[in-house]
Amino acid sequence: MDHGAALLTIFIAFVAAIIGGEIAMRLKMPSVVGQIIAGVVVGKSVLNWVSIDTTPILFELGELGAAFLLFSVGLETPFDKIKQVGREALVVAVLGVIVPFIVGFAWAHFAGFPNNQAAFVAAAFIATSAGITAKILQELGVIDQKYSQVILGAAVIDDVLAMLVLSVVSAVSTGETVNFASIAIVIVQSLAFIFLMSTLGRKIAKSRGSRILDKPLSPLSPWSLSIALCIGVAVLANKLGLAAIIGAFLVGMVLAETDYKEWIHEKVIDLNEFIVPFFFISAGLNVDIEAFRSLDALGQLLLVSTLAVVGKFVGAFLGASQNRRVVGIGMVPRGEVGIIIAGLGFQFKVIGKDIYSLLVGMSLLTSIVAAPILKALVKKDGSDEQT
Amino acid sequence: MDHGAALLTIFIAFVAAIIGGEIAMRLKMPSVVGQIIAGVVVGKSVLNWVSIDTTPILFELGELGAAFLLFSVGLETPFDKIKQVGREALVVAVLGVIVPFIVGFAWAHFAGFPNNQAAFVAAAFIATSAGITAKILQELGVIDQKYSQVILGAAVIDDVLAMLVLSVVSAVSTGETVNFASIAIVIVQSLAFIFLMSTLGRKIAKSRGSRILDKPLSPLSPWSLSIALCIGVAVLANKLGLAAIIGAFLVGMVLAETDYKEWIHEKVIDLNEFIVPFFFISAGLNVDIEAFRSLDALGQLLLVSTLAVVGKFVGAFLGASQNRRVVGIGMVPRGEVGIIIAGLGFQFKVIGKDIYSLLVGMSLLTSIVAAPILKALVKKDGSDEQT
Repeated sequence: MDHGAALLTIFIAFVAAIIGGEIAMRLKMPSVVGQIIAGVVVGKSVLNWVSIDTTPILFELGELGAAFLLFSVGLETPFDKIKQVGREALVVAVLGVIVPFIVGFAWAHFAGFPNNQAAFVAAAFIATSAGITAKILQELGVIDQKYSQVILGAAVIDDVLAMLVLSVVSAVSTGETVNFASIAIVIVQSLAFIFLMSTLGRKIAKSRGSRILDKPLSPLSPWSLSIALCIGVAVLANKLGLAAIIGAFLVGMVLAETDYKEWIHEKVIDLNEFIVPFFFISAGLNVDIEAFRSLDALGQLLLVSTLAVVGKFVGAFLGASQNRRVVGIGMVPRGEVGIIIAGLGFQFKVIGKDIYSLLVGMSLLTSIVAAPILKALVKKDGSDEQT
Repeated sequence: MDHGAALLTIFIAFVAAIIGGEIAMRLKMPSVVGQIIAGVVVGKSVLNWVSIDTTPILFELGELGAAFLLFSVGLETPFDKIKQVGREALVVAVLGVIVPFIVGFAWAHFAGFPNNQAAFVAAAFIATSAGITAKILQELGVIDQKYSQVILGAAVIDDVLAMLVLSVVSAVSTGETVNFASIAIVIVQSLAFIFLMSTLGRKIAKSRGSRILDKPLSPLSPWSLSIALCIGVAVLANKLGLAAIIGAFLVGMVLAETDYKEWIHEKVIDLNEFIVPFFFISAGLNVDIEAFRSLDALGQLLLVSTLAVVGKFVGAFLGASQNRRVVGIGMVPRGEVGIIIAGLGFQFKVIGKDIYSLLVGMSLLTSIVAAPILKALVKKDGSDEQT
């Protein structure tokens, strides 16, 4: 009888997402491009119909959406395949972090920013958004290709590296002493978490997983348990300093070892149809076009975005051993990870509103630009003969 | 890398719901009882792990959950059957509103409350929560029984009547002149909305619905469109002063006329497994057990709840022509509707915190008490021979 405000916001955002996604697909682009742009359009930049500041629900649905998206991708990703490409993914991740960091730092340095600001800019340059790339690969139906495994594996490693860099940069930029011991503990925890999930978790899933999912708890459906696991491990990953989606991805991979793999996958796809669009919409909602009204600011945005694309592409390209262009462009989208890093810098008062807007704009632009190129390259290079 | 608070809250609430639901089902009770109680347990009354005041996300997910629940029930409810029982549902609704209103008013009057407070208490006595009853009927697999149609039809009519009573009571209690013209307009709008949905909407769905859902918009799935319709019409119902869930229910009934009926139903069930528990959990979160620590207050709660159960049961029982006990008890749960009315009274400063807590407690207690009785009666009386 009241309380309709949240429902209305959710309705507007959802409809905007399906319209945006539809237009993008008719233009032969991945739907995420349209959904992100739809977020920009209904947000404060253009129509101002919904604002993420007053309606955190969209952001929270977006977080859930990202988690369930990576969960579904995890379900499609066999451990053995990821293991095969482990070494290559590591090299892609490391070079894909080092090169853009240097490029970002160099740009900021020559643009006259003090070192602590330049370090934050560089940090925002490094982390790939697994979500955006994963969605495109899923839409193209190529998650099971080798290059997809390389990209996803690298995106996970990338997140650990980004966390490392961010810890150092945050400490340095805010003038604290870098506490290497505590950083080391966090890193070890994260690696132990990923290691345990991919060994012990997988073993349990393989030997008893199906029984754990179906035996117990009479009517408690395996699907409910899977949802609880997905969110729970996402929360745990978050507590360890990793992106929540990494946890969700690992749970998906673990559950892929059970007999319920196909069954859960069907269900999560039904859920994702509702919840994933909020992830892309809320990414778009973060943008404030106002910040790029001046020709100067717009030029800066284009320059920074170009550098971010080139830096990541070159790093990942050099690290890859096959389908190098696909892997290179697949690592380009920064999406929500760049936005989160920029947000931290703004929150610590290291960077101002202008650089914040610039980094948010860059994060989205890299995603919007990379998406159609990735799609085209997958169609061209991504054939089976090369994998 | 941050923002984990909402995810953690969602995780706790979801796990509490599945554990509560599981315990209830092992005790041969409907799962909703366990889920509501789980909400009380994790809420401020006991563990204080989650609070609906600081985390509106649970409440908003709960609203969505209620909408999708009624949407799924609508999909299982053929129009023709509801039409057959239309007259009986009307009588059940009217008597089921009049009797509890009189009982509630009488109690409040003799308990010494002034008339404006007594009117609000009486208003909180009248409206049945379609959600709770619907979930129980769905769990028992008897949505297609005639008595279920009577209950659901009556719950919809009931909501229109509750809106009417609430408009009058609000105006009177806050000392405004009752503007019968504007109330009449709202009522006519609501009735026109329900009428149009069940005639025009249905005709469109029957003649072109399937084509509308599949033809257009190449990859835009019919499932996305159904979600958008469900939320959109729920918002519209809300704007017209009806409960959002009534709109969602009607959309479900309309889409049940298309060829996609089964297909959409499967998908919404997958979604509901995730989202519906938040509806029941957030109902439980509203309770503050603190208010019933004194023996006096507890006695009052039990008395009021008993009157609320008896009043509704007698009214609906008298109105029904078959399976009268099932219909009578099926109308008893007040759930979220009673809570919303109590909240309005508190917001208008007509009733104080104590009566507010009393009405919230009554709303939940009626639901918790009615659920197992309804289940038992359905098993006993609800056989096919009587329908």
